[in-house]
Amino acid sequence: MKPAAITMGCPVGIGPEIILRFFDSLSEAEVPAAPVVLGDLGVMARSAALLGSKSQPVAWQLGEDITPGTVPVLELSQLDSSTLHWGQPTKESATAMAEYIRRAAAGALAGDFSAIITCPISKMALCEAGIWHPGHTEMLAALTGASRYRMMMAGTRLRVVLVTIHEPLAEVSHLLTTENILGCIRMTADALRRDFAVEKPRIAVAGFNPHSGEQGMFGREEIEIIEPAVRQYAGEAMVSGPWPPDTIFYKAANGDFDAVVSMYHDQGLIPFKLLHFKDGVNVTLGLPIVRTSVDHGTAYDIAGKGLADAASLRSAWLLALEIAKNRTL
Amino acid sequence: MKPAAITMGCPVGIGPEIILRFFDSLSEAEVPAAPVVLGDLGVMARSAALLGSKSQPVAWQLGEDITPGTVPVLELSQLDSSTLHWGQPTKESATAMAEYIRRAAAGALAGDFSAIITCPISKMALCEAGIWHPGHTEMLAALTGASRYRMMMAGTRLRVVLVTIHEPLAEVSHLLTTENILGCIRMTADALRRDFAVEKPRIAVAGFNPHSGEQGMFGREEIEIIEPAVRQYAGEAMVSGPWPPDTIFYKAANGDFDAVVSMYHDQGLIPFKLLHFKDGVNVTLGLPIVRTSVDHGTAYDIAGKGLADAASLRSAWLLALEIAKNRTL
Repeated sequence: MKPAAITMGCPVGIGPEIILRFFDSLSEAEVPAAPVVLGDLGVMARSAALLGSKSQPVAWQLGEDITPGTVPVLELSQLDSSTLHWGQPTKESATAMAEYIRRAAAGALAGDFSAIITCPISKMALCEAGIWHPGHTEMLAALTGASRYRMMMAGTRLRVVLVTIHEPLAEVSHLLTTENILGCIRMTADALRRDFAVEKPRIAVAGFNPHSGEQGMFGREEIEIIEPAVRQYAGEAMVSGPWPPDTIFYKAANGDFDAVVSMYHDQGLIPFKLLHFKDGVNVTLGLPIVRTSVDHGTAYDIAGKGLADAASLRSAWLLALEIAKNRTL
Repeated sequence: MKPAAITMGCPVGIGPEIILRFFDSLSEAEVPAAPVVLGDLGVMARSAALLGSKSQPVAWQLGEDITPGTVPVLELSQLDSSTLHWGQPTKESATAMAEYIRRAAAGALAGDFSAIITCPISKMALCEAGIWHPGHTEMLAALTGASRYRMMMAGTRLRVVLVTIHEPLAEVSHLLTTENILGCIRMTADALRRDFAVEKPRIAVAGFNPHSGEQGMFGREEIEIIEPAVRQYAGEAMVSGPWPPDTIFYKAANGDFDAVVSMYHDQGLIPFKLLHFKDGVNVTLGLPIVRTSVDHGTAYDIAGKGLADAASLRSAWLLALEIAKNRTL
């Protein structure tokens, strides 16, 4: 299998550090499956010196073998170290950061990479560099020509897929439609079958209101919007709901379901982060390439301090490998 | 200390069963602090025979000692067994159920009981018996003359207090006011100090929107309503927020806070039930009496089958004792 590509993310965030920690954590058996880094060799080398990393960043080109003990870096920028300060992105660092993503997407589409794993970026810096995307995922969707995509958060105990994401909560009710919920159910079912090798996925669809509205007493979204979506689904998965939001995540985390389709950001992310604060993975469903991402931000407040935890990157890498393998079966 | 009173709840739900299981679970050391049951001796005795309970229900009157191995029942109804069927409340059973609550509230107000612990009731049956309250808590508030009260869910890892409860989620934004959030913060602070003996409580106030709105990008409730409430609080507790909802419950569950003030039902109950599905306790703040409740319903589907779990009742009893003791310090 072709190597997976890790994008370095914001050069002045915790991306370089978690990548080094991650390479340091690789066991001998894991090295042959090691990913490559799309980023800046100078930044990686300086970070390795600063943090006392065991693994040594080295220049790497497509097709070359990976030497154990090294961090192979496909060099896409040569940022001037005198302009770089932890936690302070510049136009140059943001432009470089965007280039890592572009190259990763193009390489994955061309078959040079089996998957891409993205480290955190600064959306604001991206904007200031003149690159207009609401976020990482939207940028990747545009780069790979995907018109419909969803965010899944995946962990060992819980997987959630979001129907709506970064919307004011007061507007979510107006944004829910039977069509977009049904689309989300289908995409979840397809992903569980193809990417997670779950032959007959059990998908729980969460309600929207307390107690799922109690027969319309506390809201009618369940009756008018969500139930029809569950009813209209006709595929290979077992789809049920709308379930009362306050108990369905407990049931799913205890093995009753393979994923929960969640109506809004915090409905899915509150339980997900409670169980997978450190090792959660963000998976983009609906792209023509395999893409996972760490489940945290640039953490500018701790960048360069040796405090970052690489658990989410490690989980994101393992899951990307698993998905890539399942897709080739 | 006067005995605590357990109300039997709906006579054809799981109340009688969890009470018997609870008494069966009492250790010798716990017996002197054992509560009394306000309910129906015949129902309790028949349930004990059906379920093979070790503890024997016996008639009990105010002031009498409690005999180890017995379940002391203050007899408030004598329901006709031929009319009782598990899971099928009648007007008579609902009227009796309401009487247990009335007597418990009156006894607690009069100082005959140190606390009351309520078993689940059927709101629909209550309505059909002509007793109009949206729920148990509202009925107790009316019986004890409390005009302001809040629901706290308490567990060993997490405590949440709800600003709004059984409301359609689309309407919550309009129901949030700086005044009611501030009232909730104050009541939480007072309860943590008086009832939970936390001298300087650390209270986290959750935001409303994803990422707490990200400076107004995804909603302005944080800026316009929640922040002013946090700012205006001037008391003994350390109050902070609004915090991003998807991470604050993780932080609180890991010991950073003593309670989280939650803006809506599922924001608080999704994380609470994930951690305390079986042993959660509902505590009513703002009443002149100590009241805790089990954190589950009548469970008509399993009533009489010997399947009910008494963990929540046990936790509710232990917490009621603790609160009653703290109040007398």
